[in-house]
Amino acid sequence: MQHVTFSPTQQRNCLKDRKGKTPRSYRQDRMTSLQMSAKEEMLEKFLDAAARGDLSQVSTLLSGVPSLINQTGYSGWTALMLAARNGHYHVAEALLSHGCDKFSVNSSSQTAYDIAKFWGHRHVSNLLSRTDDGCRRILPGSDLSQQENYFSRETLDRLSGKRTDTGWLEAKQSDPDTVYILFSNLSPMVSSLQEEGSAGEETRLCRFRYEDVKDLLQKPDTVLIFLGVEKRKKPSSSSSSLQTDRGIWEPAAWFAINTDEDAAELLKRCREKNCSFPKTPNRDLLKLSEEEAGVVAQARSVLAWHSRYSFCPTCGGSTKLEEGGYKRSCLNANCRSLKGVHNTCYPRVDPVVIMLVIHPDGNQCLLGRKKVFPVGMFSCLAGFIEPGETIEEAVRRETEEESGIKVGPVQYVSCQPWPMPSNLMIGCLAVAISTDIRVDENEIEEARWFPRQQVIDSLFRGSRPTFTVPPRQTIAHQLIRHWIGMNSNL
Amino acid sequence: MQHVTFSPTQQRNCLKDRKGKTPRSYRQDRMTSLQMSAKEEMLEKFLDAAARGDLSQVSTLLSGVPSLINQTGYSGWTALMLAARNGHYHVAEALLSHGCDKFSVNSSSQTAYDIAKFWGHRHVSNLLSRTDDGCRRILPGSDLSQQENYFSRETLDRLSGKRTDTGWLEAKQSDPDTVYILFSNLSPMVSSLQEEGSAGEETRLCRFRYEDVKDLLQKPDTVLIFLGVEKRKKPSSSSSSLQTDRGIWEPAAWFAINTDEDAAELLKRCREKNCSFPKTPNRDLLKLSEEEAGVVAQARSVLAWHSRYSFCPTCGGSTKLEEGGYKRSCLNANCRSLKGVHNTCYPRVDPVVIMLVIHPDGNQCLLGRKKVFPVGMFSCLAGFIEPGETIEEAVRRETEEESGIKVGPVQYVSCQPWPMPSNLMIGCLAVAISTDIRVDENEIEEARWFPRQQVIDSLFRGSRPTFTVPPRQTIAHQLIRHWIGMNSNL
Repeated sequence: MQHVTFSPTQQRNCLKDRKGKTPRSYRQDRMTSLQMSAKEEMLEKFLDAAARGDLSQVSTLLSGVPSLINQTGYSGWTALMLAARNGHYHVAEALLSHGCDKFSVNSSSQTAYDIAKFWGHRHVSNLLSRTDDGCRRILPGSDLSQQENYFSRETLDRLSGKRTDTGWLEAKQSDPDTVYILFSNLSPMVSSLQEEGSAGEETRLCRFRYEDVKDLLQKPDTVLIFLGVEKRKKPSSSSSSLQTDRGIWEPAAWFAINTDEDAAELLKRCREKNCSFPKTPNRDLLKLSEEEAGVVAQARSVLAWHSRYSFCPTCGGSTKLEEGGYKRSCLNANCRSLKGVHNTCYPRVDPVVIMLVIHPDGNQCLLGRKKVFPVGMFSCLAGFIEPGETIEEAVRRETEEESGIKVGPVQYVSCQPWPMPSNLMIGCLAVAISTDIRVDENEIEEARWFPRQQVIDSLFRGSRPTFTVPPRQTIAHQLIRHWIGMNSNL
Repeated sequence: MQHVTFSPTQQRNCLKDRKGKTPRSYRQDRMTSLQMSAKEEMLEKFLDAAARGDLSQVSTLLSGVPSLINQTGYSGWTALMLAARNGHYHVAEALLSHGCDKFSVNSSSQTAYDIAKFWGHRHVSNLLSRTDDGCRRILPGSDLSQQENYFSRETLDRLSGKRTDTGWLEAKQSDPDTVYILFSNLSPMVSSLQEEGSAGEETRLCRFRYEDVKDLLQKPDTVLIFLGVEKRKKPSSSSSSLQTDRGIWEPAAWFAINTDEDAAELLKRCREKNCSFPKTPNRDLLKLSEEEAGVVAQARSVLAWHSRYSFCPTCGGSTKLEEGGYKRSCLNANCRSLKGVHNTCYPRVDPVVIMLVIHPDGNQCLLGRKKVFPVGMFSCLAGFIEPGETIEEAVRRETEEESGIKVGPVQYVSCQPWPMPSNLMIGCLAVAISTDIRVDENEIEEARWFPRQQVIDSLFRGSRPTFTVPPRQTIAHQLIRHWIGMNSNL
């Protein structure tokens, strides 16, 4: 990667480039004037040092002229903003310790925090988001990259380019370092760990080697999916990589198998204790680690597609699996599905909107419950995006259909793959523009406005909460937390 | 809708409610002190007047004590922010004309603009976003609700609850005010208008009545979709609504028909001039009005699904159309697709990421071209979201696969339905964290970093642009514009 530093000088260069085109807007710029005063020169040095991350020069200049600290250069940028732009943590820290105003904004209304966030300097944005009492503020719309939902972590590099490389895939299948995970009826084989003194139960994917499963690979009804290779570049243990014949290190490949074999027989293959194929995926798959949940999200979605899409929907004929499990082609040579633009050959992903609707007063949120929910549980409203619909329109339509509430602005927050069977949950905040609830009883049993304090009590298990929210692994839970984390005056 | 005003008093009430729970954070609050000074009382009156939208009191107080203008109450809120929160345009305007600082931020780092935007007071946010020279600033992440992409406008209320109401649907079909649009081979019948002196060509959907199409409805291969009813509540002309037998006004319903009849024969049904079924939907469908494009996005996606999914993918059996065209159920009573959680019966929507990748220096963007593109055209990279993948991870994977560029932060901007056949284009800005391009030649022919000035020249048709961008109806075009509209110092 080429190192790039964004500097006040560069800002001025952009300025000069554009001067010929749009002179009016830049006529007032003092920094390009030939008569630059000593004071201006000092400010330029200071801003430049901050942009370059030169802590010692920043400190020296500041001790000589303390008033420099909040002064602005081109387009209202302060030293703190420039340090934030280029990810200079120590400079930002020093400026803050000298009493720098972190809330000032440039001419694009960006704080130093916004700038650090946009450019991905998370250490700096975390520093800037701390409040005086040490808590972290969550700003609306600006913590996108921070939220990681369950089922979202990608520990494997999918290497989609290798899916058509049959030779490479076959070699990887019999590679002794390759990892197999085993599904029966779309449920992964897991072993349970009951930690002593812990109320919670953790489950782990059972991992197999080629030798353990090669008989299954021969059976006609077995479905095999290539998941990818481990993202770690260098081996940390012999199990994650190997020296190949060509003498280069390669990360271990992962495959998922779904088989019709008898589940009890399959369990005998495993050497680990407490193995099982969980019966209720909606609940049991939430006990995995973040890493394994991400692998299962990918594997289960693709396997579920194979289990439901064995026949060509265009002609009703049989299909064959191709491209490492990411394609099913019709065996009927005359079928239309073999030509033109279409989607029948590829796995399906169903986009769903899930939204926390905020009352116009900003201090209540709308939650609903379905009949099938556990007693007392309320959650965000949600629904499938329809053909020809945007995310924002789907939020408005589903909210109004289910609760009668009309929605104005919609803001995307984060998303979550939900492999039951293959949803993409797109999480949004939405602002209500009406308040009278009329529930569609076919969809939900009840919907209510919950005051912020009741929601806080539920989230943090206060004594006797009036209702419960879904578990932390759901994006509904995370959306509710996101709203609570936002300053209450929004 | 219940009217709700957010006021400084309410802010204090929230504060009091929470005081018992978390006394530490609020101990310092001066506003609840019993010894409120005259000065503080004046400030409170001023803030309260701004929150209520009382322009005359705001003006009176301000003329007596001009220094009130930028003073802050609880959590750093100014009068301008409170006016923005409650959508009081004239108060905001008066405060600005008195020289109020619109860039100041509250303790959540929000400007008055951010607050107006979040709460959907577009007239106020537009006022606040004007720069001194009258131009409008576009702030990253905050103009979500402003961008409307082609194919996105919803002029019909889908009334999905009515899809299972067979009696209602049948009555609507023969209703003389119902509008039918006609597709042949997934192409809608349109009439072309060549306006005099205009280079562009506009096309309009041909509309039919029940009497014009009732013979088609009897044919077994005709597919009929209920699109919804017109959103307009009250009739503006007799054609958009009618007095029913029950004596109440109802908006006109819309249906789409796809038929295998001979196209030339179908064209004879139309009384309008220059009718045709365009052959190249990717280009010809972009000539519709925004309203009709939204209708076509919905209709064509659902019709394309029927044309490819006539057979049950689970058992290969025949299916029947149900629920106004939004469901296909297997006719085989023993098929697994009739029980359990699955998606085979419902129309498919394929989520796609499309991203404008920004160079780490902030002044170049990454665009690529496919072999099939018109000569000289470059566009944003894009690709299907895979099972088990988030939007953000899909942006990173696709960018790296196609161009070799690694991506850090990703920011959602807006989305667009693209009915070829049924994509949902999810548009993002992405920040590159590497700069060396290595193109995957199976995917794209070339990818390049384009300097901002070249992009501006292309967008605004400067003399001899070095390349062309896709037309304005594409989200790629809109993402590029969005980036250009952002302040160049980001």
